[in-house]
Amino acid sequence: MTVTPIKTQFGPEIDVGQVREHNRKQLEAIARYRRAANYLAAAQIYLKDNVLLRDPLQPEHIKDRLLGHWGTTPGINLIYAHLNRLIRRYDVNLFLVTGPGHGAPANLANLYLEGSLQEFYPELTFDAAGLHDFIKRFSWPGGFPSHLYPGIPGTIHEGGELGYALATSFGAVMDNPDLIVTCIVGDGESETGPTATAWHSYKYIDPAESGAVLPILHLNQYKISSRTIYGSMSDEDLLHLFSGYGYQVRIVGDDDLDADLYASMDWAYQEICRIQQAARSGEPIAQPRWPMLILRSPKGLSGIEELHGEPIEGSYRSHQVPAKHVKSQEGERQKLERWLRSYGPEDLFDESGAPEPDILALCPQGDRRMGCNPYTFGGRMREALNLPDLFESEVPVERQETDGTCKRGDRQLGNTEQLAKYLKQVIALNPQNFRIFSPDELESNRLGEVFDLTQRNFQWPTDADDENIGSHGGRVLEVLSEHNCQGWLQGYLLTGRHGLFPSYEAFLGIVTTMMDQYAKFVKVSKEFPWRLPVASLNYLESSTLWRQEHNGFSHQNPSFLNSVLDQKAEFARVYLPPDANCLISTLDHCLQSTGYVNLVVANKNPMPQWLSMEEAIAHCRAGASVWPWASTDDGVDPDVVLVGIGDVPTVEVLAAAHILRSQMPHLRVRVVNVTDLLVLEEQSEHPHGLDADMFEALLTSDRPVIVNFHGYPSLIEQLIFGRPNLDRFHINGYREEGNTTTPFDMLVRNRASRYHLIMQAIRLGSRRNSRVAAHANDRVRHYEYVLAEHSKYICENGVDPAEITNWQWC
Amino acid sequence: MTVTPIKTQFGPEIDVGQVREHNRKQLEAIARYRRAANYLAAAQIYLKDNVLLRDPLQPEHIKDRLLGHWGTTPGINLIYAHLNRLIRRYDVNLFLVTGPGHGAPANLANLYLEGSLQEFYPELTFDAAGLHDFIKRFSWPGGFPSHLYPGIPGTIHEGGELGYALATSFGAVMDNPDLIVTCIVGDGESETGPTATAWHSYKYIDPAESGAVLPILHLNQYKISSRTIYGSMSDEDLLHLFSGYGYQVRIVGDDDLDADLYASMDWAYQEICRIQQAARSGEPIAQPRWPMLILRSPKGLSGIEELHGEPIEGSYRSHQVPAKHVKSQEGERQKLERWLRSYGPEDLFDESGAPEPDILALCPQGDRRMGCNPYTFGGRMREALNLPDLFESEVPVERQETDGTCKRGDRQLGNTEQLAKYLKQVIALNPQNFRIFSPDELESNRLGEVFDLTQRNFQWPTDADDENIGSHGGRVLEVLSEHNCQGWLQGYLLTGRHGLFPSYEAFLGIVTTMMDQYAKFVKVSKEFPWRLPVASLNYLESSTLWRQEHNGFSHQNPSFLNSVLDQKAEFARVYLPPDANCLISTLDHCLQSTGYVNLVVANKNPMPQWLSMEEAIAHCRAGASVWPWASTDDGVDPDVVLVGIGDVPTVEVLAAAHILRSQMPHLRVRVVNVTDLLVLEEQSEHPHGLDADMFEALLTSDRPVIVNFHGYPSLIEQLIFGRPNLDRFHINGYREEGNTTTPFDMLVRNRASRYHLIMQAIRLGSRRNSRVAAHANDRVRHYEYVLAEHSKYICENGVDPAEITNWQWC
Repeated sequence: MTVTPIKTQFGPEIDVGQVREHNRKQLEAIARYRRAANYLAAAQIYLKDNVLLRDPLQPEHIKDRLLGHWGTTPGINLIYAHLNRLIRRYDVNLFLVTGPGHGAPANLANLYLEGSLQEFYPELTFDAAGLHDFIKRFSWPGGFPSHLYPGIPGTIHEGGELGYALATSFGAVMDNPDLIVTCIVGDGESETGPTATAWHSYKYIDPAESGAVLPILHLNQYKISSRTIYGSMSDEDLLHLFSGYGYQVRIVGDDDLDADLYASMDWAYQEICRIQQAARSGEPIAQPRWPMLILRSPKGLSGIEELHGEPIEGSYRSHQVPAKHVKSQEGERQKLERWLRSYGPEDLFDESGAPEPDILALCPQGDRRMGCNPYTFGGRMREALNLPDLFESEVPVERQETDGTCKRGDRQLGNTEQLAKYLKQVIALNPQNFRIFSPDELESNRLGEVFDLTQRNFQWPTDADDENIGSHGGRVLEVLSEHNCQGWLQGYLLTGRHGLFPSYEAFLGIVTTMMDQYAKFVKVSKEFPWRLPVASLNYLESSTLWRQEHNGFSHQNPSFLNSVLDQKAEFARVYLPPDANCLISTLDHCLQSTGYVNLVVANKNPMPQWLSMEEAIAHCRAGASVWPWASTDDGVDPDVVLVGIGDVPTVEVLAAAHILRSQMPHLRVRVVNVTDLLVLEEQSEHPHGLDADMFEALLTSDRPVIVNFHGYPSLIEQLIFGRPNLDRFHINGYREEGNTTTPFDMLVRNRASRYHLIMQAIRLGSRRNSRVAAHANDRVRHYEYVLAEHSKYICENGVDPAEITNWQWC
Repeated sequence: MTVTPIKTQFGPEIDVGQVREHNRKQLEAIARYRRAANYLAAAQIYLKDNVLLRDPLQPEHIKDRLLGHWGTTPGINLIYAHLNRLIRRYDVNLFLVTGPGHGAPANLANLYLEGSLQEFYPELTFDAAGLHDFIKRFSWPGGFPSHLYPGIPGTIHEGGELGYALATSFGAVMDNPDLIVTCIVGDGESETGPTATAWHSYKYIDPAESGAVLPILHLNQYKISSRTIYGSMSDEDLLHLFSGYGYQVRIVGDDDLDADLYASMDWAYQEICRIQQAARSGEPIAQPRWPMLILRSPKGLSGIEELHGEPIEGSYRSHQVPAKHVKSQEGERQKLERWLRSYGPEDLFDESGAPEPDILALCPQGDRRMGCNPYTFGGRMREALNLPDLFESEVPVERQETDGTCKRGDRQLGNTEQLAKYLKQVIALNPQNFRIFSPDELESNRLGEVFDLTQRNFQWPTDADDENIGSHGGRVLEVLSEHNCQGWLQGYLLTGRHGLFPSYEAFLGIVTTMMDQYAKFVKVSKEFPWRLPVASLNYLESSTLWRQEHNGFSHQNPSFLNSVLDQKAEFARVYLPPDANCLISTLDHCLQSTGYVNLVVANKNPMPQWLSMEEAIAHCRAGASVWPWASTDDGVDPDVVLVGIGDVPTVEVLAAAHILRSQMPHLRVRVVNVTDLLVLEEQSEHPHGLDADMFEALLTSDRPVIVNFHGYPSLIEQLIFGRPNLDRFHINGYREEGNTTTPFDMLVRNRASRYHLIMQAIRLGSRRNSRVAAHANDRVRHYEYVLAEHSKYICENGVDPAEITNWQWC
């Protein structure tokens, strides 16, 4: 393997001998740097004392619990060393996303050497004390954990749950044209579905507008305890596969790994430059084939070769701690000592315990250090969005009639369709700071009006007939992979941008654990003041279950609400705005917020509109309000409280209140709407939780409360748990009953229709209101009859009765 | 394109002319059949009357709500017709998994023609009345939904949530050597991660032991409203990609689609036979390259070409209902009528409304019809497992000391390690009826002892050094893709087999929505008595959060428990056995059960053992019991009830009870363990729910109850909601606080340690016990001090204090 000469370095007349000599020296230096990094990584796993092995290794030098992963570590060190060389050589703005995040000993070793750690942990100095502290704190309670985490600078991805490194990397380079993210994908991770589809991400990267990802598929053949698929594939199959994905592939697996990787990185970098320069000079390469590297290296390279007669290096046995009984077994301890001494620590660190200057000199400086790359501190890079005036998107809901009365609910509009008008302005005001990531459902979720101003960003050739697709500047990314949408958005947010993830409600659950992992990242980030908060992760759930009657049971699933509420209360927000103005006001709030996971639930079908923008803003600020215009209790002493949570359930609440007002005028009904779900929790449990007085002011202290909720009733149960007098709450919601049917039949099947509410209200209200009680049984029987008649009509005609579809509040 | 002559059909001397004539006639017949299927499919979407168009089309013939998906339908019909030909020609045991399940109009059309529907819906006869009924009931309330579902025979996969068709198909052929499953993967679905990794599934299929999957990637270029990735790829890229996955690829997209597909199907079938015959004759082909087809056909082929000046056929506009206003707009209605008449219904159906005999003759007969394939009725195929005697796997827990006392909790054993002994026997007794699907964690979850008897089934070449991997008979499938594990298992169960899915607790959530969709399938299946129940879907969650202290926060996530409990109560079961005998007894129960989703949660680390097998069986049967040997209330009148739910939390409960017994002997403590989580729910909500008397007998009616729960406290809140007197419940659990730390510190961070329980018990117990109250403050201060000392020790030493690690009950 000869190293490709770099023309620019030696002037117009290249002296081949000089080039060779230069490269040889560089390779020697890199090999020496790697020895230092490997030593530091291994030492972190095993040692708590005698960290430079200046004394013979004794049991008391060894940590009492050995936690960590050695197997992937030497490979990460190899890559890190060569990236440092590349950064120095070309002054590249580059950082690393490490898919195998359990290889943290490697990242930490390099971050220590480049001095990034010291920037944030000043005690980790280049001397014996700093080194001892550094080595000991790995996998130590209160120290660094065994995996990457937000407390480690340069980290935007933990890699605990595998599968998301690649998509996150692509999100990170979007709208950052000068940035290159190198992403290590382990052969374990490569077996995951999310990774398998993330390889297509380049089809969504405009080389003029965005930076580049250099994927390195790192094959060391083994997972925890078994062969990997990719490690078992032939070079030919790998070349075919990744060529098919659209890459130029270079397999690095020569006997001289350093020389091979050295040349391959130069090649990859120059290919990236070539593609970008072409695009930026106005002569883009069609379907550019971006470079990727496949690195084959033995698992646990340079570690213990064999132990108790079994191979360790190059085997799955080096995945975690290769020798587990070094503290108690002298034989193992000797092997460990030989292994550690093989790196020659005495030659790598000076008398004071500092790494030798020639080793340190191989690290980039300042912000070019991968642990200090500004893009890895998205909170610092973040610029607030320019947001439009809400009132410009207001839906007029109170129509002044000639007789002077106000009417609400008489116009049927789609909430998300109205939101699109607002989003269009957000896009106009923020041409390079905001993107929408959507699983091919933007039009279906009725947000298509944004295409008046922008388009889908897709780089692959499209027919002239295709609409709203282009290769430059499009703010919408549509791919039928929620995993890609989530991964891209995470990378985009964590490098300082803003975004929105609209989706069918039923299918956001596909990324439940990605959201979990992201919420954990956000939670832990808050412990480190040097990580300023990034923009919130904003989900818009539309095509909600109550109006997925046409797609049937598989499309009816509100469980993502529950998943968001499983998160730490401090970081989770769930909003169910009841109409378009509330939805716009809510989203405006979410787009301003930082550090949360915001879930907004909104129906896309035309439905009545209730509040003016001014009212909506006040209602959303409160999180929940009594709607006096819909109530008949004059603000005091209701017989029953009807609570709507969610847009469709609120329509039923209002329909019930409307019917009760005319049919049971003596029943005192209070109508409440909750738009911020978390107000229901106790104040001690959630910052949005109402205090006891406010809760009572809203829902009384003792009157029956009938809740009509968008999702599973159990969610409300867990939220109000701890509130007094719980047996007065009667919670309706989605009872996992669905099919292809009519919208009203969906409500009937789940016992959440207006008539169910009416019957509940009459039964419960009659307990303390004798004028209601006198007719209660008759009225309940009447509404049972109405329900039966409606069901009959639906079966015969295949549509809802006019009484339902034409219902208006006014 | 010429059709490959089939040698076997015409005797030893082939008359080429005769072959050509035969093929020509076959192709003509298939084209005619497709016209009938397309007509029936389109008619289902639009018509409720005049279903044979014997009268001019009028508005009143048209359904009031138009629901359905036309775009994918003609392609499914094309494939179905050719599969019928293949089945008849070679007498193949074959059925179809339709990834785009919203193409149900196609499947239904074919199922009607082949008579499968009539088997289960006798009213859907071959006459005018039957046809009218059939056409009308699509997307009609109470009729067939718009997507495939369990009420449609031949269906084992709904295809509502996209991504899982391919893995399900592979699971279906496992251990069914005579079966071929053809799987249509749409180009929308192909963008999903789960599909992208499922293509590797052949690496886990032994051609001798299992059947084959014929994947057909169906590219019609568009998703709902945009271009697809795969539809935009060149033939060359597609060939590269799928060759890399290991396939022989044939792209079908000739002008003469029928002739091309005809030949390609013969080719694919013969390739499958070649690979299988080689393997079964003892001379297997190494790394066989299985055939796959890529079918390019225009979206909505044969439908309306253009409408209002916009293209429909070959565009995303044909995805759903191509002409939406046919009822109200005459122009659209004329287009629809021309479209429907273009199939020539008068030529396809006889006077009585029955399909012409020559069309029906193209369908296979009896069980060879794809809607009647026995494997699609897994409940009928299912054979109960042979299960070993539980007592053979018993862990002895009561040691008879010389003084005659019984001791519990003095042996530390890993629960899952004990379970492996039982599983080994299950495998021995069921060599072809049971598989374990695991994301590379079987050894890590300490179930490795099964490798004494079986191995990992992996077909790709392995090193001689690799252990427990082989290409024949292995009952364990390990792939680092929870999606593949789940998909395979679903296919395996739905064709009548049994299985287990062990996983790290934190990562089962990756398949949350797959589990949701499967639970929906199971729920709806129960409405059809001709679908007997299949074996339960059994999850074993191990590497649980309390002992993922070494892997850190990313590995600490109990949310899958919540997800299972979001399912319809009738079908969801969650067990948290407190020790090994309970775990074995629980799993034995789960493996016998049918029709449930069973989630079993068990720690893998050594821990105390509490119950003998006899006691365990009784305890598991009850679901929850008082443990009198650990209690100090003599069965009546406790001051406080301590409830352990989950193995690690129960250790803390017992440690607390043990300390309280000696340190606060006057405090009357009752210890309860709950192993079946659903006993907590009200009987009206869940069949396992305890009635009010039983609940009171267990937990008293008014004493403080301190629950120490494995997962999120909110889950217990929602379960006990509705029980009286809720303010006496104090629920501890995982509060989303974690890191890399020690096991005990995990409990401390989440306020679920023994000392937290003790302090709670003293505070609550002192309310009604004055002898406790006298010392309460002193004792609480003491345990606060103990906690602080422990934390200090942990920080200094990196391990838990001996007081914690060496604790024993006895």
